[in-house]
Amino acid sequence: MSKKVRSFQWFIERLADYEAHMHAISSTVFVGGTEFQEVAIMESPVFGKMLTLDGDLQSAELDEFIYHEALVHPGLVFHPHPEDILILGGGEGATLREVLRHSTVRSATMVDIDGELVQICRRLLPGWSQGAFDDKRTRLVIADGKKTLEEFMESFDVIISDLTEPLSYSPSRSLLCKEFFETIKAHLRVPGIFSLQSSRGEFPDIYVHSSISRTLRSVFAQVRTCIVRIPSFDTMWTFTFCTDVAGLLSIDTDTVDARLSERGVKNLRFYDGETHRGIFSLPKYFRVALTEQGRVIEGEASPIPEREPVFLI
Amino acid sequence: MSKKVRSFQWFIERLADYEAHMHAISSTVFVGGTEFQEVAIMESPVFGKMLTLDGDLQSAELDEFIYHEALVHPGLVFHPHPEDILILGGGEGATLREVLRHSTVRSATMVDIDGELVQICRRLLPGWSQGAFDDKRTRLVIADGKKTLEEFMESFDVIISDLTEPLSYSPSRSLLCKEFFETIKAHLRVPGIFSLQSSRGEFPDIYVHSSISRTLRSVFAQVRTCIVRIPSFDTMWTFTFCTDVAGLLSIDTDTVDARLSERGVKNLRFYDGETHRGIFSLPKYFRVALTEQGRVIEGEASPIPEREPVFLI
Amino acid sequence: MSKKVRSFQWFIERLADYEAHMHAISSTVFVGGTEFQEVAIMESPVFGKMLTLDGDLQSAELDEFIYHEALVHPGLVFHPHPEDILILGGGEGATLREVLRHSTVRSATMVDIDGELVQICRRLLPGWSQGAFDDKRTRLVIADGKKTLEEFMESFDVIISDLTEPLSYSPSRSLLCKEFFETIKAHLRVPGIFSLQSSRGEFPDIYVHSSISRTLRSVFAQVRTCIVRIPSFDTMWTFTFCTDVAGLLSIDTDTVDARLSERGVKNLRFYDGETHRGIFSLPKYFRVALTEQGRVIEGEASPIPEREPVFLI
Amino acid sequence: MSKKVRSFQWFIERLADYEAHMHAISSTVFVGGTEFQEVAIMESPVFGKMLTLDGDLQSAELDEFIYHEALVHPGLVFHPHPEDILILGGGEGATLREVLRHSTVRSATMVDIDGELVQICRRLLPGWSQGAFDDKRTRLVIADGKKTLEEFMESFDVIISDLTEPLSYSPSRSLLCKEFFETIKAHLRVPGIFSLQSSRGEFPDIYVHSSISRTLRSVFAQVRTCIVRIPSFDTMWTFTFCTDVAGLLSIDTDTVDARLSERGVKNLRFYDGETHRGIFSLPKYFRVALTEQGRVIEGEASPIPEREPVFLI
Repeated sequence: MSKKVRSFQWFIERLADYEAHMHAISSTVFVGGTEFQEVAIMESPVFGKMLTLDGDLQSAELDEFIYHEALVHPGLVFHPHPEDILILGGGEGATLREVLRHSTVRSATMVDIDGELVQICRRLLPGWSQGAFDDKRTRLVIADGKKTLEEFMESFDVIISDLTEPLSYSPSRSLLCKEFFETIKAHLRVPGIFSLQSSRGEFPDIYVHSSISRTLRSVFAQVRTCIVRIPSFDTMWTFTFCTDVAGLLSIDTDTVDARLSERGVKNLRFYDGETHRGIFSLPKYFRVALTEQGRVIEGEASPIPEREPVFLI
Repeated sequence: MSKKVRSFQWFIERLADYEAHMHAISSTVFVGGTEFQEVAIMESPVFGKMLTLDGDLQSAELDEFIYHEALVHPGLVFHPHPEDILILGGGEGATLREVLRHSTVRSATMVDIDGELVQICRRLLPGWSQGAFDDKRTRLVIADGKKTLEEFMESFDVIISDLTEPLSYSPSRSLLCKEFFETIKAHLRVPGIFSLQSSRGEFPDIYVHSSISRTLRSVFAQVRTCIVRIPSFDTMWTFTFCTDVAGLLSIDTDTVDARLSERGVKNLRFYDGETHRGIFSLPKYFRVALTEQGRVIEGEASPIPEREPVFLI
Repeated sequence: MSKKVRSFQWFIERLADYEAHMHAISSTVFVGGTEFQEVAIMESPVFGKMLTLDGDLQSAELDEFIYHEALVHPGLVFHPHPEDILILGGGEGATLREVLRHSTVRSATMVDIDGELVQICRRLLPGWSQGAFDDKRTRLVIADGKKTLEEFMESFDVIISDLTEPLSYSPSRSLLCKEFFETIKAHLRVPGIFSLQSSRGEFPDIYVHSSISRTLRSVFAQVRTCIVRIPSFDTMWTFTFCTDVAGLLSIDTDTVDARLSERGVKNLRFYDGETHRGIFSLPKYFRVALTEQGRVIEGEASPIPEREPVFLI
Repeated sequence: MSKKVRSFQWFIERLADYEAHMHAISSTVFVGGTEFQEVAIMESPVFGKMLTLDGDLQSAELDEFIYHEALVHPGLVFHPHPEDILILGGGEGATLREVLRHSTVRSATMVDIDGELVQICRRLLPGWSQGAFDDKRTRLVIADGKKTLEEFMESFDVIISDLTEPLSYSPSRSLLCKEFFETIKAHLRVPGIFSLQSSRGEFPDIYVHSSISRTLRSVFAQVRTCIVRIPSFDTMWTFTFCTDVAGLLSIDTDTVDARLSERGVKNLRFYDGETHRGIFSLPKYFRVALTEQGRVIEGEASPIPEREPVFLI
């Protein structure tokens, strides 16, 4: 056996039936459970610190900027003057960080069910929140997002859903259905925008995303998907933006750049006008799959298609 | 041990230092060596038949259409009337297949060094070439692409390079350098287009692509990169298009759709005007990396950065 | 990416909850299903051809001699004059091959349920049977071993059970229980020996083997386990030998060597007197585990402990 | 994706060219470098805490008793009255622990080059040493074993070498050659015993062990190998015992049990008379390989055969 300079562990993430990705791991920073989920923070020579919840990679130090810029900025840029923002989930604090970049924002309310997770991230992943929790516009609520929103009297300009995948055992499960999307809509001020991470967007199977999209289209008049490469996820990811106001989601590259500039949003690394045009121009096969796959998710139904999982090892 | 309905083998592809992808394999159709390279054809439950050369995945049944449409159609669509086409490499025959879709094409010359590989693909991957080798416009030359082009008196409207990665041991090694790009340019009729697959386009390391791009920019006045998701490659891939004619590479979505329609190119699954707009709108970090990474490749220099490989198992 | 001389596939075998072994595979010779099981034959640079049934490795070219010598010779050597032998299972023909080495043997009856498997092995693994199926002492019966034995009027000197692991979906399932062991005993002539492969013998969990052993001890007066390293299995394996005749299973190394010699058994590579002494001298922890683990298997009960499997990918 | 109760990392250990073992890891306790080697402590659901040095597994909580009992007790039991013991290496303290069980022992000197490693083990793996470092018979010397022994005036009854594998970059490299074995012999009082871990003992390739054994046979009149299954190593391991006194290494099972009993060695889990008989009775193929493989290791020559390593990922 020849010299190995370092000894590696591996994080092997199942991506789909029959497919997995192997990340070499140089150290494991944290492993533990909160009341709601298993949390691990590992360090990769390529991606830096990586956060997993229940074994699914949530974000990585190297490229979390792509995920969070793609989730936040299109929605805020579509809105002509976003002031009051609600974030559901987003425990790492990076979604909050991106929201606070817009000078128009006067309040950012973040509701996450898992207070322990928020503390773990503030302590061990400070580069994610970068002080966002200390911003005086921030209000952090540790609570069930669904119940909280049902009880809130307030309304918002933009609501951003940054939840984990809607798996059967996930705390986010009941937050991805027609009924809850209607609750969200009821808390949007005109012209309100609802933005959400909306699952994998990988050919050929986009059933979960298509179901989320169909469900959103049954609630909102305007719905647009963008697809974005997140290298550490090893797949394409989708984000969806919704409103009832015609024309609001159709803006050109100059408008994107102008709005970012007017609001003092500088030093983005992923998002600008050209990026916006690219991620909202969907490949032909994706547009076809959106019309062919998925179903409206109602009540307690799972957005995950019912089928036997395939276990490989 | 619980029931496994099937027994799987795995194809584990190293993607980069510290990163690998695991494909479950339901059968191995072919393993063998030609004079030039190791060839394997495996079958995946997700991607169908997959062709590897020297252990690198070249194309897969499910999504080869994405690769080959992205390599061929932008170049032919940029050209106002492409008639004589040269393909370097492209042993599977799918690049040829896509070229022949354009009714303007009157000759398609394919030069591949590895005649055995071409025969293996025709026999075992007939869905790739779909009869393209039998088209009367096709001329197949089994020869060294470099020497052949240096000796050819002919010129072409579009030259397409569909070569393997320029690794130190690859037969394609000397076909990705400034000198050879000048040879190619000398065989282009005005307004000629040079199209090529141009390596991975994955953040953060696009050194090889950037080097190819820099080298092309030292030869051609106009150079444009597009980046495309190829799911079976488990990474983003780049294709580059070059010409000396100003404005030729700037066309709008309507022109793309119109040219495809005029030339009878129907039933594409990946490429059309909207797809074109998406793949040529590069994310901001990618545009930055293109200006920061890479170097001009001259003579026998390798486009691969000199560094110790990291072996993981 | 640096040169890989060859491209490998991998056979990843789950060994236990949380443990797996990776074999690089240079080619896949056969993949297909018979009426009873999934069959694959792969070639490893280390172990040569490897046969799997339902994803479990059965035997490998390099070291099948260890498995088959350990299964056959102790039982035949314990017997003072073995003439008529019955083999249950043993589709590869290598158990038969080893039985026929003893010049005392005048008939060897092999009953295997899976005639297709026997044909596949004769054709693709001729080194396993080495002509044993053509020996005039051989009688091959393609039938259900249980039913056949219940109907057979004959009796035998040694009965050898070479069945697959008794998993819930296995054709061998009902052949590892008290009732069937009693059927076997009824077909043994005094002083008869029953030999069987009896599952993994790996610390700390030998529950399946202990259950088989307990069940055998409820039927036979004398029961001895040996444990043997089979490198390709990546675990220790057990074989068990049973009789009702006191003293029959206690022989010294000289007797082993003398009986092999008298019967013309030459050129064994694994088994002789010293090997015999080694494999029947069990480590202390194993002797303890045999008294602490397992339960008698009766009727349709599975010898596998009831618990949720752990899936890892 | 179905529920995974826990998220696992993996420790993938290369065992040989083309072979690797995967251990699921539930947590990583420690990763760091000392002056001499990379150290990692990981926790496996099966094997508990596992210590690796430079990526090679050294010992695991579940089965380190097997390794350390096999290394220590045969040597001490072969000796009629072992009083002064020297241990080379053995940083975990478990070899020391086993030595101190013998009531005849009045001094146990341990020389390990890596004081940091010893401290890490005392702090994080207290179950290995179990207070052995605090025993008043213990003398711990942090120093280069080779230099120390060359300078020591003392002699010992038993010298135990518990070093890492003699890889080219290993601190243990120069301690496995004829010259150093002669130095050891010069520090043995008659009738002295030299015991050592002596590398893998896995069919078909035992070149390293055979070379160590040949080298020992060029120095000592009596040399015996035992082979032992260490489940966490996923291979067979050898230990070798040497002396110049005829007959000393030939003892029967009753003598083993009697000497353990006389010296108050109780509660061993692996080793006793029957185990002794088993591990010193070598399979026939192993005895043959010992005569056919390997070469005497002299001077700075590596015991590892010179050949190109095969990298798989």
